[in-house]
Amino acid sequence: MEFVSILLSSAHRLLHPQLAVLITVRGRDGKANVMTAAWCMPVSHRPPLVCVSIAPKRFTHRLIVESGEFAINIPSLEMLKIVDLCGTCSGAQVNKFKKFNLPTVEAKVINAPIISSCIAFIECKVVNSVKAGDHTLFIGKIVAAYTRGNIFDKIYMLDKCKLPLHLGGDMYTTCHGVYRP
Amino acid sequence: MEFVSILLSSAHRLLHPQLAVLITVRGRDGKANVMTAAWCMPVSHRPPLVCVSIAPKRFTHRLIVESGEFAINIPSLEMLKIVDLCGTCSGAQVNKFKKFNLPTVEAKVINAPIISSCIAFIECKVVNSVKAGDHTLFIGKIVAAYTRGNIFDKIYMLDKCKLPLHLGGDMYTTCHGVYRP
Repeated sequence: MEFVSILLSSAHRLLHPQLAVLITVRGRDGKANVMTAAWCMPVSHRPPLVCVSIAPKRFTHRLIVESGEFAINIPSLEMLKIVDLCGTCSGAQVNKFKKFNLPTVEAKVINAPIISSCIAFIECKVVNSVKAGDHTLFIGKIVAAYTRGNIFDKIYMLDKCKLPLHLGGDMYTTCHGVYRP
Repeated sequence: MEFVSILLSSAHRLLHPQLAVLITVRGRDGKANVMTAAWCMPVSHRPPLVCVSIAPKRFTHRLIVESGEFAINIPSLEMLKIVDLCGTCSGAQVNKFKKFNLPTVEAKVINAPIISSCIAFIECKVVNSVKAGDHTLFIGKIVAAYTRGNIFDKIYMLDKCKLPLHLGGDMYTTCHGVYRP
């Protein structure tokens, strides 16, 4: 079978689907924000570190630089409308929590709100940030992690939750079935 | 509903499923290797950059440091046995290409083999590497990208390919359906 060239500007989509998450943060002046991110992954076991890639133009970028903390909220597929909306407007202009009627509670360890309708939460303290092209990689140490209800036993129980995976643009998929080699 | 605490050592699995990919590379002495990786994502649009997290103890780590290049091979779900096997032994001891009978051809731009039974390929040149806990983040600039056959039109055509997504341990899932907000 033939190889088909892909434009370099579209090539990153070959690494999708990527789990869509909501990043919450609170800046120095007390103003909080939420944004959608799909470029977020674990990077280390000991210590447990994650990495999220955020463009400097994002309001969330400024708040993370200010606070040195952020929370990763993992939504369910049912929240897809919210996931999409939180990725398409800036918290510099609007209070997305109010505008989209998002239920929040305080995070356990860090100073930030979390979105309590999400299904899982990872609280992080920034240990390093690295410029990478038109984005910044924030490397965060996990300082707290919890789920809403029993949906996780070392891995997600896929019969108890549906995850939104970002394919590209406004298209998402979800995961289905468990396979073993 | 109640919040359930997750052990910090298991918390990274809350960011799975992650697309399982095969990293191929050729070292200075001509010796090539392949390893499975699930911690790999895009990090920048302009220039198009990706990031892969690899532990320094891995043979592939040494070869990437030597060569400054690597290829990301995206397998299909049908290759799950190979995906699992390439993550459970070291290329320092065995030639995994021979042992697992992997068909290879030369990459287009970089000096490395690619696994021609995979469905998509991203060739990268390392532009930065960053220590992150017990792993190294290799940030690579995409220098070539292509698929085998017509399976991608800005996003994967999910009716034409099945992707292996790593949940944890020896458990994988795949993606199913397209959702729009």
